Amino acid sequence: MSTSIETIVLALKEFLEDDQVSVNQTIRELHGRDESYHDISLPDIVVFPRKNSEVSNIMKVANDLKIPVVPFGRGSSLEGHIIPYDKGITIDFSLMDKIIEVREKDLLVKVQPGVTRTQLNKELKKYGLFFSVDPGADATLGGMAATNASGTTTVKYGVMRDQVRDLEVVLADGTIIHTGNLAAKSSSGYHLNGLFVGSEGTLGCFTELTLKVYGIPEFTTAARAVFPTVQNAVEAVTSILQAGIPIARVELVDEESIRQVNHFSDTNYAERPTLFLEFDGNESGLQQDVEFTKEIMEDHGCEEIQFETDNTARTKLWDARHNLAYAYIHGNVGKKMMVTDVCVPISELAGAVTFARKELEAIGLTGGVVGHVGDGNFHALLMIDMNSPEEVAKADAFNEKIVHYALERDGTCTGEHGVGVGKQKYQAAEHGEALHVMEKIKLALDPNNILNPNKIVKIESLGE
Amino acid sequence: MSTSIETIVLALKEFLEDDQVSVNQTIRELHGRDESYHDISLPDIVVFPRKNSEVSNIMKVANDLKIPVVPFGRGSSLEGHIIPYDKGITIDFSLMDKIIEVREKDLLVKVQPGVTRTQLNKELKKYGLFFSVDPGADATLGGMAATNASGTTTVKYGVMRDQVRDLEVVLADGTIIHTGNLAAKSSSGYHLNGLFVGSEGTLGCFTELTLKVYGIPEFTTAARAVFPTVQNAVEAVTSILQAGIPIARVELVDEESIRQVNHFSDTNYAERPTLFLEFDGNESGLQQDVEFTKEIMEDHGCEEIQFETDNTARTKLWDARHNLAYAYIHGNVGKKMMVTDVCVPISELAGAVTFARKELEAIGLTGGVVGHVGDGNFHALLMIDMNSPEEVAKADAFNEKIVHYALERDGTCTGEHGVGVGKQKYQAAEHGEALHVMEKIKLALDPNNILNPNKIVKIESLGE
Repeated sequence: MSTSIETIVLALKEFLEDDQVSVNQTIRELHGRDESYHDISLPDIVVFPRKNSEVSNIMKVANDLKIPVVPFGRGSSLEGHIIPYDKGITIDFSLMDKIIEVREKDLLVKVQPGVTRTQLNKELKKYGLFFSVDPGADATLGGMAATNASGTTTVKYGVMRDQVRDLEVVLADGTIIHTGNLAAKSSSGYHLNGLFVGSEGTLGCFTELTLKVYGIPEFTTAARAVFPTVQNAVEAVTSILQAGIPIARVELVDEESIRQVNHFSDTNYAERPTLFLEFDGNESGLQQDVEFTKEIMEDHGCEEIQFETDNTARTKLWDARHNLAYAYIHGNVGKKMMVTDVCVPISELAGAVTFARKELEAIGLTGGVVGHVGDGNFHALLMIDMNSPEEVAKADAFNEKIVHYALERDGTCTGEHGVGVGKQKYQAAEHGEALHVMEKIKLALDPNNILNPNKIVKIESLGE
Repeated sequence: MSTSIETIVLALKEFLEDDQVSVNQTIRELHGRDESYHDISLPDIVVFPRKNSEVSNIMKVANDLKIPVVPFGRGSSLEGHIIPYDKGITIDFSLMDKIIEVREKDLLVKVQPGVTRTQLNKELKKYGLFFSVDPGADATLGGMAATNASGTTTVKYGVMRDQVRDLEVVLADGTIIHTGNLAAKSSSGYHLNGLFVGSEGTLGCFTELTLKVYGIPEFTTAARAVFPTVQNAVEAVTSILQAGIPIARVELVDEESIRQVNHFSDTNYAERPTLFLEFDGNESGLQQDVEFTKEIMEDHGCEEIQFETDNTARTKLWDARHNLAYAYIHGNVGKKMMVTDVCVPISELAGAVTFARKELEAIGLTGGVVGHVGDGNFHALLMIDMNSPEEVAKADAFNEKIVHYALERDGTCTGEHGVGVGKQKYQAAEHGEALHVMEKIKLALDPNNILNPNKIVKIESLGE
């Protein structure tokens, strides 16, 4: 970057107010880290646009001057996506946080990228509607679209990509496009919705999202089911899915993680491999699904099932599950968390989780296995002392083993956290020749490689 | 194309058997038309590969010599997708028709592109499974993926793109890639699955597909519900969807179309606007859904409901619906069918269908309105005498009016038939600046513009 920061700031202030452009150290530090263990790096400038035309002008300045740009939501990413290792400009979307329109009849909502999922759900509740994707963190919807986030409800409602009808995107050169429309399906043109969702800020900045929402189900029941081993629990899930039961959530929490939960959330759950489940639907259908699920789980050695139909008990159960990562962090002060994120075909899940548990015990670090087992996606959580090169090396080697185990079985290195910088070293192994297709698309749409450079794909040289 | 056909044939016969390469007039004619009214144009050469390496070699020859290539399944497309207007080589995938693997536990199946959907469903039945996408025609799965096909079951199970876990694709230069993996979800890299599905042969040739399949539901009930007006019927559907009832199919058939059905399928249905519906699921849940749906339909003036629970009656009902296009063709010998295919947000559907009905009556050609109304997608079927310039002009103007009505309401010009050549003139109006993004992607992946050239995007000049 040959242009001075002062020059860039001046160019930005041509169309932004003074308080929309910051070079303040504290502000820059807030934009130099995410929630992961990845190294910190500060942007030179942080900007706070209020509308798409400002984002377009920011991109024009950046493209003309070849300045790297990183779009930023809440910084809750887990693989360093929003850390500006090449410095430059971070675009913070917190001022673009309006819910533009709830289209009740169409089961659609139009939002700005800085709206968070709890903010949206609070508004939707007034209409008897809800937004389904729940990654745990209260991320922004722009950020969730950028990483193709998913979570506990994905087994029934799908990932972020499944919810996106349309995106307004500002491209590298400042052009504003729409990637879709408001119809429920389309066979018109290439599927740009799908391409931009999960592009992690490397192809454009989202300035508006139109998302699917759902009616709040008539009935919801949650349950906690205890198993003798992780393998029994996972095999029960496989059988439930094969039976075609439309389960709304099914989460595995292993013994060590239940221990952390009990400690942090003041619960008294049996410290054994456990499934947290949820069913929703109409009353009679749900009852039949629940009965069938109970039978299947008992066939797989389930030792105890506790159902929770009232709202408070259900909320407590899911809060306990969602606070799990914080429980580990809280219980291991001074350590950082590394989270693996592979996803495997469901037939390979029991083997993969058993393998992860065994490897976890072998390295002797505090950690546990939890997962969205209905999708074949699980996380091994590992607490590491970043000042101990030995612990860091052990954790890295562990992550690598888990990833290769998944890739050898036609799985993926990341089920929901995304590539960022953490999963970049596995992209060639996972995608093979297809990685070159991704590189070509990146270069075609961002020829100066300014949009979140070196995330997902690494453009080695621009031949200049 | 400066190379002689003889030279190309010789190059192809370096790695293909004699009977895999044809310049026979009859064979070429079979590959020069689809099921639509679009003009005929013959390929120079038709090839019949047996495996991916042969497809790769064909692409290398074509790319070196800059020969256009069109991938071909069964020729059941409706917008001229597979008609080789630039001549060249047509790759017929009928010899690549193996079901490679049924992964029962993973609810996945791996197939070659020439497998048809009824062939697949026949095999899957042995496992208690089914493949959900049903466009009516017995298309190949490769073709269905190429156009992002959908149909009657999409309201519950989704479009073709939702079923694709992985594609093996041969690119323009012969490189073989995989676009996905076998895990239920992934946030790794750009979403190439989504990009290649619906690319209509313009980005690559599919040589293998891994698709989601489902367990055959415990219970299925079909129904036929008669309404006083099309508007009443559509409004009933909107209410059913808003109530969150997971209906498996919901099809609108207007009066004229019921008349054609009765004539062709020897049924005796009331010749009034009608909904064909299907529900599936567990017995008690389904019963509750059916009761609730009945109430909603009665609130919207439903005059008669006939339920069909036994298999034969259900099959008869859906056969009648699926044979509708043939009923029109059969009943109008010497005429060709034009089918509109817009999809609108569900809140705009009643207005759009009413508008289409009114316009249809105004032009005075035989035709009717049917549709996958649960998705907001409907078809106006029009029978035209292709030798009458007046009828053709009327039909074209009608199609254009319907498309613009949809685009003005944030809909799409094609819900499921695809762009081909028929919907190309609306691409700029629908996609705006995003069309240039599509052009850039096309040129990045197929720099010589040999893959199904001038379909979806028109590359005006390659600057040579």
